[in-house]
Amino acid sequence: MSLIVEKYGGTSVGSIERINAVAEKVSKSHHQGNQMVVVVSAMSGETNRLLDMAKEINPGMPARETDVLVSTGEQVTIALLCMALMRIGHKAKSYTGGQVRIETDGSYGRARIRSIDDSRIKKDLDKGKIIVVAGFQGVDNKGNITTLGRGGSDTSAVALAAALKADECRIYTDVDGVYTADPRIVPEARRMDMVTFEEMLELSSQGAKVLQIRSVEFAGKYKVPLRVLSSFEDGPGTLISYEVDRKMERAVIAGIAHNADEAKLTITGVPDHPGIAHAILGSIAEKMINVDMIIQNIAADETTDFTFTVPRTDYENALAILNKVSVELGARGVTGDNNIAKISVVGVGMRSHTGVADLMFATLAEEGINIKMISTSEIKVSVVIDDKYTELAVRALHKAFKLGEKK
Amino acid sequence: MSLIVEKYGGTSVGSIERINAVAEKVSKSHHQGNQMVVVVSAMSGETNRLLDMAKEINPGMPARETDVLVSTGEQVTIALLCMALMRIGHKAKSYTGGQVRIETDGSYGRARIRSIDDSRIKKDLDKGKIIVVAGFQGVDNKGNITTLGRGGSDTSAVALAAALKADECRIYTDVDGVYTADPRIVPEARRMDMVTFEEMLELSSQGAKVLQIRSVEFAGKYKVPLRVLSSFEDGPGTLISYEVDRKMERAVIAGIAHNADEAKLTITGVPDHPGIAHAILGSIAEKMINVDMIIQNIAADETTDFTFTVPRTDYENALAILNKVSVELGARGVTGDNNIAKISVVGVGMRSHTGVADLMFATLAEEGINIKMISTSEIKVSVVIDDKYTELAVRALHKAFKLGEKK
Repeated sequence: MSLIVEKYGGTSVGSIERINAVAEKVSKSHHQGNQMVVVVSAMSGETNRLLDMAKEINPGMPARETDVLVSTGEQVTIALLCMALMRIGHKAKSYTGGQVRIETDGSYGRARIRSIDDSRIKKDLDKGKIIVVAGFQGVDNKGNITTLGRGGSDTSAVALAAALKADECRIYTDVDGVYTADPRIVPEARRMDMVTFEEMLELSSQGAKVLQIRSVEFAGKYKVPLRVLSSFEDGPGTLISYEVDRKMERAVIAGIAHNADEAKLTITGVPDHPGIAHAILGSIAEKMINVDMIIQNIAADETTDFTFTVPRTDYENALAILNKVSVELGARGVTGDNNIAKISVVGVGMRSHTGVADLMFATLAEEGINIKMISTSEIKVSVVIDDKYTELAVRALHKAFKLGEKK
Repeated sequence: MSLIVEKYGGTSVGSIERINAVAEKVSKSHHQGNQMVVVVSAMSGETNRLLDMAKEINPGMPARETDVLVSTGEQVTIALLCMALMRIGHKAKSYTGGQVRIETDGSYGRARIRSIDDSRIKKDLDKGKIIVVAGFQGVDNKGNITTLGRGGSDTSAVALAAALKADECRIYTDVDGVYTADPRIVPEARRMDMVTFEEMLELSSQGAKVLQIRSVEFAGKYKVPLRVLSSFEDGPGTLISYEVDRKMERAVIAGIAHNADEAKLTITGVPDHPGIAHAILGSIAEKMINVDMIIQNIAADETTDFTFTVPRTDYENALAILNKVSVELGARGVTGDNNIAKISVVGVGMRSHTGVADLMFATLAEEGINIKMISTSEIKVSVVIDDKYTELAVRALHKAFKLGEKK
């Protein structure tokens, strides 16, 4: 008998009809002889409905009370899904995060899971019950309700799978797996049967928003076998694998990711001496602005140009900070661009193959697309381009790397 | 410094605007130097919205999951009210029933409170915080969420006031106090400044639906000073008192209650021997039908007539049962009437005054209203009449007992 953790997001449980459909899916897995733990989000729209009331009553949105408020969303879903399961003849029991008990730190709105008590759930599983757990939520060591932040239900599912030593953790979403590129841009994009953990990590962080990057990291830490599937249609989905011995036929490149949510800033002619990077980025980090790509080049005149990217929503803030820093450092000036896109080719095969970066650059050059920044890691090459070329670049690269062809 | 428990029902917190108004009311009490504990219900309509979803998904409404579901209603309100209080400068903290911890038995949907841990709330009160507690809910000794049943928020408030030894428990409703009669029927009905616990108990159970009878019983048990006020307008409301030494000016009669939700059944010509009452009512009780008034008269022929009242919704059921019992007992027959109303005059002064029943009967006779049943207790006289005379009877009695006159 296998133990399976399944997670259904907000759109998957967005109506009574959808909840009944989820119950049927869970029932099927249970009838196949599996012990089932189901993690659910709030019905789609519910969290925003609650947050809108909170904003109206107190725009300051006090953190502790916001968590008390929004955690009711998942609590509604667990009760309704249990009722649906019982109606079709199953024994089912709901657990809030606190009832499990999923203990977190005390950071309201973005709590991190510290420990999970699996004893009560295991006892109920052994009695043949289907367990339905509220995702996204926990309690701190004083019993205060906490939430894990947006997408936290994925993390709840993976963490429960790790604690229960589940045989598989299935994340049901509105797409049927991980694709070689965004199918809305590239019609011939192909669903991958399997993707490595490292590839998934890069694809997630590069903007392929199938899974929250935090849940992928969590899965990697505990080697939880993770599968992404559609809750709307049947299919095998995409398995995220930790295998080292890969099939020889494995493609060099797994997929293309794109992200148009960033902006780039450059401070030019900075007198080059130790501590410059910290002087520049320290003031950005202080304001809690995340920095993604960082590039530094030394010019002939012993000054340096320093470029980095930030979330586009933080562009104006970062620009203001940088202008101040520029004066302090005696730099030449500051330039910025918030019409950029980052395009990445990702694949573990890259480690042993040369020429990936070269093919990428050649392809973009052929299309007349100028590259503004380049950054590489062991399993990806990222470039920053003008964002109006996003679709063109993704399509051309998908074709050049032959990702649409059946492997 | 006094400790006050205030309770606001669903209509009092039915919108963002209303929640802000409640926050202002609570703030005022706090600024008067009181420690404040506030108990709230779900926003009006919310509980029914949740129950409708449950009914659609599983008409069987599994009890445990129904409580998990509906308890979210109060959880939303406590968070929003805390946010409103914080916005106007207060320190506030919400507690679910489980967080307090309000421990109940395991009867989902109609749980009874077993114990309340006051330690955490007291600590927070001493830090100057306003405490907002979810009414209507608790947890059993295994941590399962339970609810106290309709009107349970009143019971939560009274129980918390008892546990915290509060100086006063204020129940805010949509009326501004307890009246000498229903003001919708009797325009000259007068709000009472004070009513005794026993009178309140009779008025509640007779249909003056200001407070749930369970919460009044609970208050009486722990001698919690209870006050009923309006959440929509300022005013002193009505104090429910436990004083034995009453003002001499106290009226004989406190008020008139009426109840048109009952039906009456009679089994005639029952051979009179011991055990008859049990033979008749046992089969009614078995079906969980509540019996209110019971009257038995012995006729000349050594048979007896036995009459009782049941909730009108149980009339058809009770009639069917009684027809069966009648045959078994060899009785003459069964009659019933579901167009009745019960009218009661209530007052502790009655104990030492004769003539109350007589004035009541005379008044009804003058109006040509026939009395079908009579039942008395130490502090009330109840009669059953044709329900079409309800308003006429209440108005006539209110006038006859001079209840509209300022005392």
